[in-house]
Amino acid sequence: MESTPSRPQARLDPYVDRYAARTAGMTASEIRALFAVASRPEVVSLAGGMPNISGLPLDVVGHAISDLVAQQGPVAMQYGSGQGVPELREQITEVMRLEGIEAHPDDVVVTVGSQQAVDLVTRVFCDPGDVVICEAPSYVGALGVFKAYQCEVVHAEMDADGLNPEALRQAIAATKAAGKRIKFLYTIPNFHNPAGVTLTAARRPEILDICHREDILILEDNPYGLLGFEGEPMRALRADAAEGVIYLGSFSKTFAPGFRVGWALAPHTVREKLVLAQESATLCPPQFSQMAVSAYLSHHDWQGQIKQFREMYRERRDAMVDALTDQMPASCRWNVPDGGFYVWLTLPPGVDAKNMLPRAVTARVAYVPGTAFYADGFGSSAMRLSFCYPTPERIREGVRRLAGVVEAELELRATFDSYAPARELGPRGYDGPSSDLS
Amino acid sequence: MESTPSRPQARLDPYVDRYAARTAGMTASEIRALFAVASRPEVVSLAGGMPNISGLPLDVVGHAISDLVAQQGPVAMQYGSGQGVPELREQITEVMRLEGIEAHPDDVVVTVGSQQAVDLVTRVFCDPGDVVICEAPSYVGALGVFKAYQCEVVHAEMDADGLNPEALRQAIAATKAAGKRIKFLYTIPNFHNPAGVTLTAARRPEILDICHREDILILEDNPYGLLGFEGEPMRALRADAAEGVIYLGSFSKTFAPGFRVGWALAPHTVREKLVLAQESATLCPPQFSQMAVSAYLSHHDWQGQIKQFREMYRERRDAMVDALTDQMPASCRWNVPDGGFYVWLTLPPGVDAKNMLPRAVTARVAYVPGTAFYADGFGSSAMRLSFCYPTPERIREGVRRLAGVVEAELELRATFDSYAPARELGPRGYDGPSSDLS
Repeated sequence: MESTPSRPQARLDPYVDRYAARTAGMTASEIRALFAVASRPEVVSLAGGMPNISGLPLDVVGHAISDLVAQQGPVAMQYGSGQGVPELREQITEVMRLEGIEAHPDDVVVTVGSQQAVDLVTRVFCDPGDVVICEAPSYVGALGVFKAYQCEVVHAEMDADGLNPEALRQAIAATKAAGKRIKFLYTIPNFHNPAGVTLTAARRPEILDICHREDILILEDNPYGLLGFEGEPMRALRADAAEGVIYLGSFSKTFAPGFRVGWALAPHTVREKLVLAQESATLCPPQFSQMAVSAYLSHHDWQGQIKQFREMYRERRDAMVDALTDQMPASCRWNVPDGGFYVWLTLPPGVDAKNMLPRAVTARVAYVPGTAFYADGFGSSAMRLSFCYPTPERIREGVRRLAGVVEAELELRATFDSYAPARELGPRGYDGPSSDLS
Repeated sequence: MESTPSRPQARLDPYVDRYAARTAGMTASEIRALFAVASRPEVVSLAGGMPNISGLPLDVVGHAISDLVAQQGPVAMQYGSGQGVPELREQITEVMRLEGIEAHPDDVVVTVGSQQAVDLVTRVFCDPGDVVICEAPSYVGALGVFKAYQCEVVHAEMDADGLNPEALRQAIAATKAAGKRIKFLYTIPNFHNPAGVTLTAARRPEILDICHREDILILEDNPYGLLGFEGEPMRALRADAAEGVIYLGSFSKTFAPGFRVGWALAPHTVREKLVLAQESATLCPPQFSQMAVSAYLSHHDWQGQIKQFREMYRERRDAMVDALTDQMPASCRWNVPDGGFYVWLTLPPGVDAKNMLPRAVTARVAYVPGTAFYADGFGSSAMRLSFCYPTPERIREGVRRLAGVVEAELELRATFDSYAPARELGPRGYDGPSSDLS
């Protein structure tokens, strides 16, 4: 034999030729390795979307759960209904009433976080090649689901007033003209993740009307709706369209994510399919988690707690926006969100947020590059900055570090005065309302 | 207009033409309506697979969870890793060591019950039309997953020693000859659900060898492995084949199902895919549930608890088998399981278990007809009887009622002396070891 035997590679995957086609759409985030570094305590992470739950009264939660074990332990630790605990579904209808929704508990399906609701809805509706229309940018976790179900994502532009109706019309028309099948519009109307904007009240009937005329179901994902910094919660799209909307809610941001309790409110026939899908996926969502959340809602002033969360997040939003105004180069733009967790920042032309990230992490600050929120490679000059988890002091320090990194980037460019042309955001990219220019 | 306007039907599904093709495989059980009746307290249900957790020490569980909230609340209530809590994965390797498995915690993925593990493995491996080989009969919840992923199930016969190697060889050969792609063998080696049998130690190397030679992955589902009534736990298939086996475990039967904590132990490259699938499905499994199970394992003599469970279930097994021996017509056959929850009973020729079920429920006893455990309509003359949940007294009463129903059925047939020929179980049906004939 002439050839030297090759040494087997330790990480060769012997199963590589037998995975399902859909696994091609299940890929580890290219920035995941960086995030392992970014989780070191010396790094200010403006990247994560973890709620700050340090304000939760541990004694109240502890007592509620002790009582639950003592009084209903054998039920809480047993299998339950695939649809979820009836008492909790009743309470969920009360939560949704704050956004104008009148619903029957029988139309609610409890899910393992609202992430699982996105998964189950997609499972029930989408064949490979089906189109889901999403805002540009959109929630990275939902884009991951659509990809894993081999859907095609078509983005529709947003502006400072949220999803642009004309952009939606165009996206629908172009998709239909291409002979493709639209299964639903996935939208986050309130305090958008990642864009931070909110669909205005004036636009809501128009979006509903477009989808009604075009016979397109709406998947309304609303984890942040009760976390607005002023005024009353916005009226949900679902409140004015019981048949055309599947509404997703979550206790992850208004209580705590560790229980993984979210829900879908769906038209009756869809709800039936979702329960079957849930039974196939998990038999039933965790009974103990559901009853713990239910006990918390029963025994605590949960609306007062949400008010405290709102004030805490508003203070952090202010810290971030003030620091951005004070520190960032004038050529950066961002918006001022009225609620939720996120600011969307657009860098000066020619600065690529993903390329810059390793230098930012070296400077001990982290963010999520905008490309993560597009299915099509857009967003390179943007980033999502989260103000939910770090303290105001850490936020200010993080923005100071980030501003230094951007300054250095701009200086480098000015010095060499020759850089590759930036990939443009293009017509579908949202790059922040002009009124918020700093 | 000549025609009278038709009244719209309340339950017409406006979405019927837009569901994914896979929803055709997501159907409500035809016996579900009957089970709603069967859950009335006056009915003795030998149908369900609910573990009897009344022996769990609520004070111990309550204290473990109170301490968890007080000492680690902000971590337990926060998002966690998609792979699961590291301490729990470490403990899971200790649990598996009882069955001869040496594994690294990094190769364990925590799931929302082992049901979700079946779902995620199928998601990662199976395209529509792929074949999964299953025992005949097999676990109804797994068959549901395979159907929902549009797989084809090919059954391989069992006998009193578990999966029959020759039947497995034939099933593989016939499937390959038909040009179909086998993705894995799904097997429950211990105290089978629903058949009650256990794969003998002698057969295990042979099954492993067949799958190794044929290059077929094994999905070893083992929720009952520690619930044997005598001797030590059987050595897992995975213990002797780290690369060719994905092993699934669960705390639902050894602790409690309400936390929904199961796991998959998989070869490293497969584990990576399962974590990506888990992140897409739920972001992460419930942190609180996982830490509650972990605290229970740390603070309680969990092996002593399992011993108590075993003794309790053995007593119920004895109650059922004794009652069957005393009461059932001589023409019925069943096996005597060495562990787990189930007895598989075969009715005399001509008696159809599904047709008989409404009469049984009227007589206030319920079971699951055998057809539920076949993907292909077999099993009509068999039924699964569960001894896990009712007390020994209730089990005896349930069997007494069931015997009465079968007697009446046989009398009716004798009277009319003409009945439709029964659908035979056929060569792939397991109808109980002859040594257990009553």
